[in-house]
Amino acid sequence: QCVVMAGPGAIESRRQLERIAAALVDRGVRVLSGNVLPRYDNPYGFQGLGEEGLQMLREIADRYGLMTISEVANPAHLPLLVQYVDLIRVGGRHLKDYGFLRALARQPKPLLLTRDPASTIEESLISADFLLSEGNPHVALCEAGIRTFETYTRLTLDLAAPATIRRLSHLPVVVDPCSAAGRRDRVLPLSRAELASGIDGLLLDLHDDPDHALSDGAQALTLEQFHQLMDQFDQLAPIVERWG
Amino acid sequence: QCVVMAGPGAIESRRQLERIAAALVDRGVRVLSGNVLPRYDNPYGFQGLGEEGLQMLREIADRYGLMTISEVANPAHLPLLVQYVDLIRVGGRHLKDYGFLRALARQPKPLLLTRDPASTIEESLISADFLLSEGNPHVALCEAGIRTFETYTRLTLDLAAPATIRRLSHLPVVVDPCSAAGRRDRVLPLSRAELASGIDGLLLDLHDDPDHALSDGAQALTLEQFHQLMDQFDQLAPIVERWG
Amino acid sequence: QCVVMAGPGAIESRRQLERIAAALVDRGVRVLSGNVLPRYDNPYGFQGLGEEGLQMLREIADRYGLMTISEVANPAHLPLLVQYVDLIRVGGRHLKDYGFLRALARQPKPLLLTRDPASTIEESLISADFLLSEGNPHVALCEAGIRTFETYTRLTLDLAAPATIRRLSHLPVVVDPCSAAGRRDRVLPLSRAELASGIDGLLLDLHDDPDHALSDGAQALTLEQFHQLMDQFDQLAPIVERWG
Amino acid sequence: QCVVMAGPGAIESRRQLERIAAALVDRGVRVLSGNVLPRYDNPYGFQGLGEEGLQMLREIADRYGLMTISEVANPAHLPLLVQYVDLIRVGGRHLKDYGFLRALARQPKPLLLTRDPASTIEESLISADFLLSEGNPHVALCEAGIRTFETYTRLTLDLAAPATIRRLSHLPVVVDPCSAAGRRDRVLPLSRAELASGIDGLLLDLHDDPDHALSDGAQALTLEQFHQLMDQFDQLAPIVERWG
Repeated sequence: QCVVMAGPGAIESRRQLERIAAALVDRGVRVLSGNVLPRYDNPYGFQGLGEEGLQMLREIADRYGLMTISEVANPAHLPLLVQYVDLIRVGGRHLKDYGFLRALARQPKPLLLTRDPASTIEESLISADFLLSEGNPHVALCEAGIRTFETYTRLTLDLAAPATIRRLSHLPVVVDPCSAAGRRDRVLPLSRAELASGIDGLLLDLHDDPDHALSDGAQALTLEQFHQLMDQFDQLAPIVERWG
Repeated sequence: QCVVMAGPGAIESRRQLERIAAALVDRGVRVLSGNVLPRYDNPYGFQGLGEEGLQMLREIADRYGLMTISEVANPAHLPLLVQYVDLIRVGGRHLKDYGFLRALARQPKPLLLTRDPASTIEESLISADFLLSEGNPHVALCEAGIRTFETYTRLTLDLAAPATIRRLSHLPVVVDPCSAAGRRDRVLPLSRAELASGIDGLLLDLHDDPDHALSDGAQALTLEQFHQLMDQFDQLAPIVERWG
Repeated sequence: QCVVMAGPGAIESRRQLERIAAALVDRGVRVLSGNVLPRYDNPYGFQGLGEEGLQMLREIADRYGLMTISEVANPAHLPLLVQYVDLIRVGGRHLKDYGFLRALARQPKPLLLTRDPASTIEESLISADFLLSEGNPHVALCEAGIRTFETYTRLTLDLAAPATIRRLSHLPVVVDPCSAAGRRDRVLPLSRAELASGIDGLLLDLHDDPDHALSDGAQALTLEQFHQLMDQFDQLAPIVERWG
Repeated sequence: QCVVMAGPGAIESRRQLERIAAALVDRGVRVLSGNVLPRYDNPYGFQGLGEEGLQMLREIADRYGLMTISEVANPAHLPLLVQYVDLIRVGGRHLKDYGFLRALARQPKPLLLTRDPASTIEESLISADFLLSEGNPHVALCEAGIRTFETYTRLTLDLAAPATIRRLSHLPVVVDPCSAAGRRDRVLPLSRAELASGIDGLLLDLHDDPDHALSDGAQALTLEQFHQLMDQFDQLAPIVERWG
């Protein structure tokens, strides 16, 4: 069964989160995502709402009966996240930062560990294994694309990776098609493909007004696209589950 | 609607082709593939049956009411292929061999042009365009994986490529998951994924006894896997078609 | 003029540093490098000496009249480094960690910013530019290899990068051939090549007993290789300088 | 000792070849290169002079006492080349075309086998080994760049490859920096680097008027750059030879 998680690249306001949360509830999606410190490539852009954003995320999620996931920007950021969110996403750049991974392993929240764009499946598994061995039994892996010579999409999803990870481990695999594509017009086909291939989770950038998003707008689904994707998801999911 | 094409990496015998053709007919697959000159990486292996193999392919295909596709090994091989097969596959290594592409454009059979593992989508489109402009109106593109640093699979399927090609052109897109994966245990998830993403054709290596195949056995589906994949295909295809 | 910097991947003991420092002084090398927190791929290996190691580095460097460079493991590590070292190396995984880069820009020590194995030259330049604009005028870039499909070496040095960076900016370029190669038997040809191509600095892993190194031993030069490389360096450098 | 080979991407006229040949003789370069059928990426560009070009190449080379090298475009082209040139270059796209490699192995001229941009060192060595085992004892390998995500240069030279090939085999290694860079302003640093690293040959695109070249002009050295490179070469070569 594939768990969908969705929300804005950057939390901007209560109103934004509410509109997105309402759409999630409408489609039976149970996890609201949102970040409060900068994740991506623009040093001059919006730098996030910090703790205020986490408070908003918690408040709206509670009101709508949702769980929350947020990315941990750096070690100093961890205590704050632990306080507010249900699941912690670890960015690919920390994949081999074993000191930080140790700290992550020793806090109680489940972890979603992102493969770095230059790392092999094996390197992801070594780091996941380290988290497990250091004491956190709840670890999932996130595929968000690897760097290749093709430039139509920001990164290339390694389509065979989920099946490979499932064969080599018992870890759940989540896919982040928005970060990989870098553009929303590829997200639906990528999402359907990953779902049909067999994955445990799908993490989507979703924005109520992506053209005016303060961060990562180009890769965020519109609410309309989200509904279209969930329609397709609802048709695909029962078939895919039958295949086991 | 996604057209399935399947057959052995190398044609070995009438008996082999008959068993495979019977399986295709059983599942409503209409195109039998098979090669008669070496395609791949082993210079010391089986070197193919040559014209005798093409005769077998034609004969069995006619008996079972199937169309045929075969890869053209080099320019000297072309006249023979034109005589025997319905569709001609052009390997990635010829992608920029414009002299040869001109000859291919000037014969009447439809062409399936394979992207080279080191070529961009744009470079594929330039070559396809050249074929069209030189006079062959029947050109489809084949994605068979690009070379990346990940080594669990031989090549990495660029999952976003079919959607990108469809957006930039009107050319049909076929995917060859067996060559990309290099191992049969990844082919089912890759095939389902590509089908759900939206493609026009699927080209499969299929062998009645892949463990004893004279060529490319590791990446060929067994008959049992083929039936399993076609079961999944039959469930997915009607849904995917609805999405257009 | 190309500045050589050399030292152990991990500082292990005073005795180790002294033997290495003596070799540096013997060859006119002016910068001693050494790390005290884990940099690389082995979570189960030696985890570094921490502040004790920095004290050793400072003490030995002072005794031998050398400058020091060390890699900053994470933001919490920065105040300690600022206290003890002359130059701070920033690892590739922090290349887009703009919060941390801001902190690095606002401390007084010169910075050596490493290109991430999945980042383009342009992305390196954007981050360097950010450091400059945030207030640190002393920034150099470090090429330590990019991830490609070739696996004989850990990473592939992008040989054209120094010339490209020099054309696009005024930043000095340092090359780290040991991290790129991952094996000491390729370091001499790589170093000579980079020197002849035209670079501003060379950062070498050097160990007095690499077969028993606690970290990164496979890529560290022996003292004998170091002397051999410096012999070649002494022959090449005057010629290269003439070319400007 | 590093052998320099140089000439135009495409042979255009006697006058062109004469001006280039004169420059070669002036600098002690002994091998004139030039192609007569299209090598590269432009299907709409100049398609080469064919046999007439080979006659010119032979005639000018004889007049100036030079040897000749030319790339073989396809199997049908081989008999013509054998008749006119001293060395045959085999493009990367033929690296695994074992039928063609067998024909190449069975003709008497020495071969320069180019690594494909998507092929590993190991795959190059397998093909070189095949040429040797099929009967041609004169095989050298040519590094002309591999495809990576960096786009400032057309391809990335795998700087460690020559040292790796020399360690794994006894085959000479030639480097083609112009094809790899795709732009002449990187060729001097790349050439000096490869020379200092240790190679057996350097193959250069050289044109008397590259801005008006009919093919590959952007990557061809001007005569002025050629003289500048040869000046540097003359300073470097004696030192490099001493290192063995």
